Amino acid sequence: MPGSENVGGVMLVTKFRIGILGATGMVGQQFIRLLDGHPYFEVGHLFASDHSAGRRYGDVTRWSVSASIPESIGELTIESISEIPTDDIDILFSALPSDIAESVEEDAARAGILVFSNANSHRMKDNVPILVPEINSDHIRLVAQQPYGRGFIVTNSNCSTAGLVFGLYPLIPFGIEQVVVTTLQAVSGGGLKGVPAFDILGNVIPHIKNEEAKMETETKKILGQFTKNRIEPLKTDINATCTRVPVLNGHLESVSVTLKEEISIEEAVQQFTQFESGIMDLSLPTAPRTPIVLVDDEDGPQPNKHLLLPEDPLGMAIKIGRIRRKSKSLRFLLLVHNTIRGAAGASILNAEYAYAAGYLEGVSA
Amino acid sequence: MPGSENVGGVMLVTKFRIGILGATGMVGQQFIRLLDGHPYFEVGHLFASDHSAGRRYGDVTRWSVSASIPESIGELTIESISEIPTDDIDILFSALPSDIAESVEEDAARAGILVFSNANSHRMKDNVPILVPEINSDHIRLVAQQPYGRGFIVTNSNCSTAGLVFGLYPLIPFGIEQVVVTTLQAVSGGGLKGVPAFDILGNVIPHIKNEEAKMETETKKILGQFTKNRIEPLKTDINATCTRVPVLNGHLESVSVTLKEEISIEEAVQQFTQFESGIMDLSLPTAPRTPIVLVDDEDGPQPNKHLLLPEDPLGMAIKIGRIRRKSKSLRFLLLVHNTIRGAAGASILNAEYAYAAGYLEGVSA
Amino acid sequence: MPGSENVGGVMLVTKFRIGILGATGMVGQQFIRLLDGHPYFEVGHLFASDHSAGRRYGDVTRWSVSASIPESIGELTIESISEIPTDDIDILFSALPSDIAESVEEDAARAGILVFSNANSHRMKDNVPILVPEINSDHIRLVAQQPYGRGFIVTNSNCSTAGLVFGLYPLIPFGIEQVVVTTLQAVSGGGLKGVPAFDILGNVIPHIKNEEAKMETETKKILGQFTKNRIEPLKTDINATCTRVPVLNGHLESVSVTLKEEISIEEAVQQFTQFESGIMDLSLPTAPRTPIVLVDDEDGPQPNKHLLLPEDPLGMAIKIGRIRRKSKSLRFLLLVHNTIRGAAGASILNAEYAYAAGYLEGVSA
Amino acid sequence: MPGSENVGGVMLVTKFRIGILGATGMVGQQFIRLLDGHPYFEVGHLFASDHSAGRRYGDVTRWSVSASIPESIGELTIESISEIPTDDIDILFSALPSDIAESVEEDAARAGILVFSNANSHRMKDNVPILVPEINSDHIRLVAQQPYGRGFIVTNSNCSTAGLVFGLYPLIPFGIEQVVVTTLQAVSGGGLKGVPAFDILGNVIPHIKNEEAKMETETKKILGQFTKNRIEPLKTDINATCTRVPVLNGHLESVSVTLKEEISIEEAVQQFTQFESGIMDLSLPTAPRTPIVLVDDEDGPQPNKHLLLPEDPLGMAIKIGRIRRKSKSLRFLLLVHNTIRGAAGASILNAEYAYAAGYLEGVSA
Repeated sequence: MPGSENVGGVMLVTKFRIGILGATGMVGQQFIRLLDGHPYFEVGHLFASDHSAGRRYGDVTRWSVSASIPESIGELTIESISEIPTDDIDILFSALPSDIAESVEEDAARAGILVFSNANSHRMKDNVPILVPEINSDHIRLVAQQPYGRGFIVTNSNCSTAGLVFGLYPLIPFGIEQVVVTTLQAVSGGGLKGVPAFDILGNVIPHIKNEEAKMETETKKILGQFTKNRIEPLKTDINATCTRVPVLNGHLESVSVTLKEEISIEEAVQQFTQFESGIMDLSLPTAPRTPIVLVDDEDGPQPNKHLLLPEDPLGMAIKIGRIRRKSKSLRFLLLVHNTIRGAAGASILNAEYAYAAGYLEGVSA
Repeated sequence: MPGSENVGGVMLVTKFRIGILGATGMVGQQFIRLLDGHPYFEVGHLFASDHSAGRRYGDVTRWSVSASIPESIGELTIESISEIPTDDIDILFSALPSDIAESVEEDAARAGILVFSNANSHRMKDNVPILVPEINSDHIRLVAQQPYGRGFIVTNSNCSTAGLVFGLYPLIPFGIEQVVVTTLQAVSGGGLKGVPAFDILGNVIPHIKNEEAKMETETKKILGQFTKNRIEPLKTDINATCTRVPVLNGHLESVSVTLKEEISIEEAVQQFTQFESGIMDLSLPTAPRTPIVLVDDEDGPQPNKHLLLPEDPLGMAIKIGRIRRKSKSLRFLLLVHNTIRGAAGASILNAEYAYAAGYLEGVSA
Repeated sequence: MPGSENVGGVMLVTKFRIGILGATGMVGQQFIRLLDGHPYFEVGHLFASDHSAGRRYGDVTRWSVSASIPESIGELTIESISEIPTDDIDILFSALPSDIAESVEEDAARAGILVFSNANSHRMKDNVPILVPEINSDHIRLVAQQPYGRGFIVTNSNCSTAGLVFGLYPLIPFGIEQVVVTTLQAVSGGGLKGVPAFDILGNVIPHIKNEEAKMETETKKILGQFTKNRIEPLKTDINATCTRVPVLNGHLESVSVTLKEEISIEEAVQQFTQFESGIMDLSLPTAPRTPIVLVDDEDGPQPNKHLLLPEDPLGMAIKIGRIRRKSKSLRFLLLVHNTIRGAAGASILNAEYAYAAGYLEGVSA
Repeated sequence: MPGSENVGGVMLVTKFRIGILGATGMVGQQFIRLLDGHPYFEVGHLFASDHSAGRRYGDVTRWSVSASIPESIGELTIESISEIPTDDIDILFSALPSDIAESVEEDAARAGILVFSNANSHRMKDNVPILVPEINSDHIRLVAQQPYGRGFIVTNSNCSTAGLVFGLYPLIPFGIEQVVVTTLQAVSGGGLKGVPAFDILGNVIPHIKNEEAKMETETKKILGQFTKNRIEPLKTDINATCTRVPVLNGHLESVSVTLKEEISIEEAVQQFTQFESGIMDLSLPTAPRTPIVLVDDEDGPQPNKHLLLPEDPLGMAIKIGRIRRKSKSLRFLLLVHNTIRGAAGASILNAEYAYAAGYLEGVSA
C-alpha cells in the first residue's frame, strides 16, 4: 500500500513501482509528466523499442509536452519491451502501438503485473473493461474473468470516445435513439510525428483511419450494463465522422443526439452540471473535481481557451457548450484533452480507482 | 445584348454595364477577379463606403485574392453607394454588408437595375428567389412579383448553404427526413478582416453568428417547389452546427442524411455523379462542367487539395467524398469554395442564367 | 505606502490606486491579469474609448488572455478617457494607441498622476525615460526634468526592443560595432484584432509598420548613458528587419552582433548567464529571478516551448539560445514574451521599481 | 536529340529517356509534375527504396504536390535503385537522400548516364559544379574533369542557397564584404513527412540541421570564378541563421549585405531588374522570363501571395522586395520557391542548359 511509515524517526514513503511501456512517445511523455510527484506511483522503468533500449532517456527522447523532462527520469536507462523485469514492477502503464501491445501486455499480466493500457488491442475483448471510473466503475469486475492470475489488463478508451461518453451518459435516462457526431481532432492525437505539417497546415483532413469505428463500438461498450458477468452494450445508433484539424491539443466534438423523450435545455444543462460520479468521495489525485464543466461562452468550448481551466488544471474534465435543442434532438459541442483525459490521464485515473477499490491489494507497495 | 457587330470593318463588342457594390472587400474583389475578361459583363463602376469614395480603387484596396488588381480596375475611382449613376449601369453585383444592403439594393432595382446580390437582406422574402440555376432555375420567375418594374433583385445563398444544397438535391427522390450537418468553415468567409488571427491560429471557434439559422432556412427554400407563384419550402428537418477553422478558403461540411427509403452507396454515388443540371446546354461561362465532383481520395475532400481541380479551375463545382451508409442514413463530406461558389461566382452565374433565360431583354447592352 | 496596519485588531491593507488606460485591448487585459492580487497595486478604474464608456467591463470585453476575467474586474464600469477622476487614482498604466496617448497621458501627469506607459508617444522625448530597471535604472532620474510637478511619465519600450536590449547590454563591454537583427513577431503584437487571419495563416508578412525604426532608435536610447542630466544614446549601428509570423505569442529575434573585441562563445555565455541586474536585491514582485535564461536546446528558443518556464512563470525573462561566433561577430536567437515583458509586465515592473526607488513617496497609498 | 521527324507521314517525337531517383518524395513528385509534357524529356523509370520497388507508383505514393498524378506515371512500376537499367536511361534526376545518393549517382555516371542531382553528396567536390545557369553557366565545364567517361554529375544547390545567390550576384560589382542572412523556411523543405505538425503549428523552430553551413559554403562556390580548371570561391563572409516557420511552400530570406562601395537604392533596384542572364537567348522551357522579379508591395514578398505570379507561373523566379539602405549596407527580402527553384526545377533547368550547351550530344535521344 502506498503510505508513509515512521520508522525510528525516519518517514518512509512507499509507492507502487511503475513501468511505462512506450515511454518516448507523446502519451508516454504525458505519463511521465503526470506521474511526476504522484502520491501513489513511482516511475522506475521506462520501455521503448529496441533501437532506443540501453540509452539514457534524456538523450533519446524529443521531449515535447513541457519545457523539460523531470530530472530523475532523464537519467533512467531505457529498457527493451522484450525484457521486462517483472519482479521489480507492480504496475505497467502502456502507451504501446496497438500492433505490439497485445502480446507484451498479456505477457506482463501473466507475470502478475497490473496493466493499465491506452492501446486498443484488448479493448473490445469480452473480459477486458474499458474503464471510465466516473461512468462505469463496476466494469472493473470483468478482470476477475481474465486468465492472468493476480495480473490483469484494464484499458481506457480511444481519445475521441473519452469525450463522447461524458456527453452521452447523463442523457441515458431520456433514451438515446441516435447519435451523430463529427469530431475536429488535434494533431497530438496522431503522436509526436504522426501528422506531417505539410498535410495539415491551413487544411482539414476529413478522415482518421479506424477512428470512426472505434468511437462507435467503444462508446456502446463503455455505456453498457454489467450484468451476468458480461457487458451488454448500450443499444443505440452511433454515427461518427472524424476529421483532423490544425490544432495542437484538444479534440472538439459536434454532437447531435436524438432522444426518446423530449428534454428542455434546462433539463439538459441540469443533467450535465449535476452529474455526480460515484467516485467523488474517493478523492483520487487525478480525478477532476467536476467531470463535466459547462463553458459559459457563446463561442466555446475552444481548444485554445478552455482546455485547461482554473477548476481543471490537469485537463481531466470534459467541457460542454452551445447546448441547443429541437423537439427530441439535442445538440452541443464538447471538448476533451486528448492526450490527458483521452490517454495518459485516463490510464492513471483507472489505476488510482483500482487501488481505491481494493484491486491492488496484495501488490507489493 | 452582349455581342459583337461589324460596323464598317470595325468589330464592336457590346457588354452589359456592370457596377459592384462593396467592391473593396473579399467578395467584391472576387467579383472583380471573376469578371476580368468576362464575355457578357464589363465592370465600369465600383462602389464602397463613403470614406473610400472619391479615391482610386488601386490606392484604397488591400488586394488579397490574387497577385495583383486587373489593371483597368485599379484606375477606377470608387463611388459612393449613395449616388449610384443608374443611367450608366445595367447590372449591379452586390457584396454589401447586410445592414446596408437592403435599401441600397431596393433603390437600385426601383431605378430599373438588375441586382444580383450576395447579401442576405432579401433572401427570405417571398418574392425574392435564392437562385441556384442547376437546382431551382424556375425560382427566377419570382421576380415577376417584385414591385420594381424592369428592375429586380435575385439573391444567392449563404456560403455554407451553397454547398449543402448540392449534397441534398440529388437525394430528394429518396425522401429526406432529417439532415445533421457540421461545417468547418474557412476564415475568408468572415471577410478580409473578419476573423482576427489571434482568435483562430491553432484553434477552432465552434460558433459563427446567425450562420446555423441561415443554413437551415435557406436550404429549405432553395430546395422548395415553385407552385402557384410561390415557393413551398422543402419539408424536412435540418440541424446545423457551424464552426470556424484555421483554413484560408473552402468550407468543408460533414453531412448526415436520414432518408425515407434505403439507398445503397452505389445508388448514392450514381445520384451525385449523374446529376445533370438543366442548364448544361446553355454553356454559361461560369457554370462548372460538372456541378458535383466525386473526389477519389479516401482522405478527401480537403480544402488545400481539392478546392480547385483541373476539371474545375474556377472553383464552382462542389466536391463530395467519403460516402458512407448505415441502413437509411447516408453520410458524406462536401467541400465548397466559399467566396466563389458560395459568393461572387454564384451571383455571376445567376446573372448569366438570367441573361440566357431572357430576363435581361430590354436591358441596354 | 502599500502595507498593512493593525488597527484595533483589524488588518488594513493599503495599496496604490490604479487606473488602466485602454483596458479592453490585448495589453489592457494583460495589465488586469498581471495586477490580479498584486501586493502593491489595486485596480479601481478602467478606461476605454467613448463607445465602451458607461458599460460593464465584463459585458464589453472580448476577454482573450486567459480563461476568464478576474471577478471583481468584470463588474467595473468602463470610464471615458476624457473624464479621468484624478483624485481617486495614484498610478495610471497606459495601453492607449499612440495617436491618443500623448495628450491623455500628459494631462494625467499634470494632474499629479504617475503614468507608466506602454504607448510610444513620449518614448523618444528628452525628458522621458524608456525604463528597463535591470539595465538602465538610473534613467528614471529624467522624470525630475518633466514639467508635471508631482506627476510624471515613464515609458517602456516597444515589444521587440524589450528583447533586443537584453541581448546587447551584456556585450557592451566588448564594444558593439554593428547589429543586424531580423525579428519573427507574434500576432498578439498587433493587438486583439490587429492581424487578420486571412493575411497571416500559413504566411509570413515581412513588414511591420514603423517597427524597424522604433527598434533602432529605442534600443540606442535604452542602452545610452545618463550624464549631465541627459541621455547619450549608445553609438552603434542597428539594422532591423521585422516580420510577422503565424505565432500567437512570443517574438523571436535572430541577432548578429559585430564586436570591437573578439569574444569566445564561453565568454558570451558567461556574460549572459552572469548578468546581474542591480535590482535583484529589491525583490520586486514582477522582476524575473534571472533576467536572461539560456535555453539548453539546440532547436531553441521556440515560442511554443520556451516562452514560459518553471523558472519564469510570468514570462518576464528573455530566453537566449544557439550562440554562435565567427571572429568578431556573434550570433544568437532570443525570445521575448511580447505582451508581458514587451508590454504590460514591463510597465508594472517599472512602477514597482519606481516605488522601491522612492519615486512614489508622497503618493497617497 | 529531342525533336520530331516525319517518317512516312508519321511524326515521330524523340525525347531523352529519363529516370527519377527518389520518385515518391516531395522533390520526386515535383520532378514528375514539372516533366509532365516536357518537350525534351520523357519519364520512363521511377526509382525508390526497396520496400516500394515492384509496386505501382500510383498505389504507393501519397501524391501531394497537385490534385492528381499524371496518368501515365501512376501506372509505372517502381524500380529499385540497386538495379538501374542503364541501357534504357539517358538522364537521371536525383532526389535521393544524401546518405544514399553518393554511390548511386556515381555508379550511374560511371555507366554513362548524365546525373542531375538535387542531393548534396557531391556538391562541394572540386570536379562537380553547383550549376545555376543564369549565374555560373561556365561552371558546367567542370564535368570534363570527372572520371566517369561519357557520364557526369551536375548538382544544384540547397533550396535556401538557390534564392540567396540571386540576391547577391547582381551586387558583386560593388564588392560584397559581409552577408548576414536569416531564413524563414517552409515545411515542404523538410520533405513530405520531415516536419511534424506538432512541432511547428503556431511555432517557429530556429534551427535546421546543417542548413546554415550549406548556405555559407555553397553560395561562395556558386558565385566563384572558374579559372585554371577550378573554381575559386567568392571571398566574402556569409553568416546564416536558418529557421523553420509554419508555411507550406516558399523560403523567405532577410538579407543584409555590407558592400565595399556605397550604392543607392536606385542602383540596387537597377542591378536587380536589369539582371540579364546569359541564357535568355536559349529559351529554355523551364527558365524564368525574368530571373529576378521586384515585388511592388510594401508588405512583400510573401509566400502566400508572391510565390507564383502571372509572369512566373512555374515558380522559377526569385522575388525581391523592401530594399533598404544605410551607407554601405543594403537590406532586402527575397523569396524562393524551395521545391521548384530550390530543387526539382533547378535540376531540370540544369539539364535543359546542358542540352543547349551541347553536353548531351552523343546521348541517345
